[in-house]
Amino acid sequence: MLNPIVTLTTDFGLKDPYVAEMKAVILSINPKTIIVDITHEIEKFDVRTGAYVLASASQYFPKGTIHIAVVDPGVGTRRRPILIQTKRGFYIGPDNGVLVLAAKNQGIEHIYEIKNRKFMMPKISNTFHGRDVFAPAAAHLTKGTQPSEFGPEIREIVIPKFANVVHRDGSFFGEVLHVDDFGNVITNFREKEIKALRIRDMVSLEIKGANLKLKLCKAYAEVEAQKPLAIIGSHNFLEISINQGNAAKTFKIEVGDEVKLYRS
Amino acid sequence: MLNPIVTLTTDFGLKDPYVAEMKAVILSINPKTIIVDITHEIEKFDVRTGAYVLASASQYFPKGTIHIAVVDPGVGTRRRPILIQTKRGFYIGPDNGVLVLAAKNQGIEHIYEIKNRKFMMPKISNTFHGRDVFAPAAAHLTKGTQPSEFGPEIREIVIPKFANVVHRDGSFFGEVLHVDDFGNVITNFREKEIKALRIRDMVSLEIKGANLKLKLCKAYAEVEAQKPLAIIGSHNFLEISINQGNAAKTFKIEVGDEVKLYRS
Amino acid sequence: MLNPIVTLTTDFGLKDPYVAEMKAVILSINPKTIIVDITHEIEKFDVRTGAYVLASASQYFPKGTIHIAVVDPGVGTRRRPILIQTKRGFYIGPDNGVLVLAAKNQGIEHIYEIKNRKFMMPKISNTFHGRDVFAPAAAHLTKGTQPSEFGPEIREIVIPKFANVVHRDGSFFGEVLHVDDFGNVITNFREKEIKALRIRDMVSLEIKGANLKLKLCKAYAEVEAQKPLAIIGSHNFLEISINQGNAAKTFKIEVGDEVKLYRS
Repeated sequence: MLNPIVTLTTDFGLKDPYVAEMKAVILSINPKTIIVDITHEIEKFDVRTGAYVLASASQYFPKGTIHIAVVDPGVGTRRRPILIQTKRGFYIGPDNGVLVLAAKNQGIEHIYEIKNRKFMMPKISNTFHGRDVFAPAAAHLTKGTQPSEFGPEIREIVIPKFANVVHRDGSFFGEVLHVDDFGNVITNFREKEIKALRIRDMVSLEIKGANLKLKLCKAYAEVEAQKPLAIIGSHNFLEISINQGNAAKTFKIEVGDEVKLYRS
Repeated sequence: MLNPIVTLTTDFGLKDPYVAEMKAVILSINPKTIIVDITHEIEKFDVRTGAYVLASASQYFPKGTIHIAVVDPGVGTRRRPILIQTKRGFYIGPDNGVLVLAAKNQGIEHIYEIKNRKFMMPKISNTFHGRDVFAPAAAHLTKGTQPSEFGPEIREIVIPKFANVVHRDGSFFGEVLHVDDFGNVITNFREKEIKALRIRDMVSLEIKGANLKLKLCKAYAEVEAQKPLAIIGSHNFLEISINQGNAAKTFKIEVGDEVKLYRS
Repeated sequence: MLNPIVTLTTDFGLKDPYVAEMKAVILSINPKTIIVDITHEIEKFDVRTGAYVLASASQYFPKGTIHIAVVDPGVGTRRRPILIQTKRGFYIGPDNGVLVLAAKNQGIEHIYEIKNRKFMMPKISNTFHGRDVFAPAAAHLTKGTQPSEFGPEIREIVIPKFANVVHRDGSFFGEVLHVDDFGNVITNFREKEIKALRIRDMVSLEIKGANLKLKLCKAYAEVEAQKPLAIIGSHNFLEISINQGNAAKTFKIEVGDEVKLYRS
């Protein structure tokens, strides 16, 4: 039988013992687990970027992979620990939106609140659910515990603004999820919205009062150097780019900016 | 049979090939080893923090785990390479105190000086015992080499000031081990000293001339916001904290400050 | 059977999802692979340092290890993806020299251009061959795909200046590969050149107009403190050092400086 894979995405950094403690807890429960770091260098409490990085990376992992994400400013408050079962795997973390982009990409099947103390550490700190709640949940899941054993199924979870696309008057309203090192602007629109508008060649976007009409490309090089384009990136989101240029700087776009997608 | 676990705690950083060379040596001797990084971002030569991080993380690993720590300003001098066998696992590194907090936490059973060239790399550099002495020792240990085969049993090892708690006139004298990101002040007192003084509710501490009388809590929230408390943290040391505040700043406490623990 | 080892050396950093995506692709093809990070903190596009770090670390890995290196400023241009088979393992990456120092150290047996789409991701981005070309190639290699199945054998690959040693008029001309944290100056000369000149005791070097006549040592301590020496380091290159001092500063030597090795 194949060894189970558990990934970790956190804002803990690599200086402190926290990441190792999560790994130790997982290996104590199931020493056969293959643990893969996605990143531990999310900016402290930057749920949006955590969600984006997790969504980008997790799609490449094999079916059945369990992903833990801990960007958790609300730890110790009433925010719930949750387990999302998707068509391709499992997502474990706080109910603050950090799991939502990735889980939606894969197709959500069930969501459970993690409540069963049997699958937590005996002593649960108020500040470190990564080690005391999420890591043991993932490890027990690798050993065959059924998702429904962790707690009650729930319907509603927190959908933060960055994960929300609104349909109104025939247009879609979303926002800028991420700007990468090259200045590519990643929105929270997916192929789904492109298809719903029956867009084929040209994408119309309104952002910061400006209207962009961009060729929907499959490769940057389909337009000349320094020309803008739209593309569904390998992260599966609609991206505004400039071939060999910096779209974010050119259009003065920042993370969180609202974007309207429409058909002109 | 379960695959053996070896952890690494160093001040090597992640830019250079050093960490990978240690892993390569371990995997060359025993390819079945599961290697887990605790951290490689200890400040260069900061033995105290290395010891603290190792003590914090290593308690969560399964029984039998082998921990290597290399924060080793004295490499190439006469400081000895040692192997400490505890009730729960093994610690390998230089005899400069970096292993002591963790090993004492688990209960030291035997200490050996690593001397047997048979279990070292054929060529031993003066600057990199991590790769040439400690990594091969750990790997051979995973393969069933008996601890006593590495060299003579020894009784005395270096106990640095930060690992030393002195009992005098009915009080304990220790020091500040670590200040974490939240300003929590971690001392080198353990439950043992609390019990020896038969402290139950209130902890009395003298630090920098000031006297603190703090409630001994099980959770930060047992006192009001901005109020100080004492707590045995998940690292197993006595911690001075302020609920939702910064104890180190408030009390102007720094790493290395002396602390007196007494019963008032 | 032993699980295969694949190492990764990149300039991707640890913040972004890129490294995890490569690991995900490898584990999707062969979940039994043991993946070891050499480093992901090579300076962006610094092929020379990537080559040096890979050469230093890879020699310690077991026979049969597959090394991927992605420092790839030319991704998306015509530079070829290659697979080098050596006497001890395999090197996969762009044909820009990043693999050359390491592969030459081990003895090159065959070089193949990676062309067979069957062993790539279905969709190949222009910007991320690490994930779409190199990672799947390595993973398929672990599963028994023959090197020759990846594409045609080739004879000529890019040998950058830093990997080139020229023999002229009885002397060797090379350059400074790397200056380490201690100020040790690592040249691109190997034992081979030392032997070709039948040098035994004293090494003569010309660098920046100055002539150095240095004792060829086996350990730094063979000369007095603050005295210069030459040594074949654990990286297998000829190194100019000062015992307990900083050779690069003392001699004002920088990476890329030309060095002449001769017999006086």
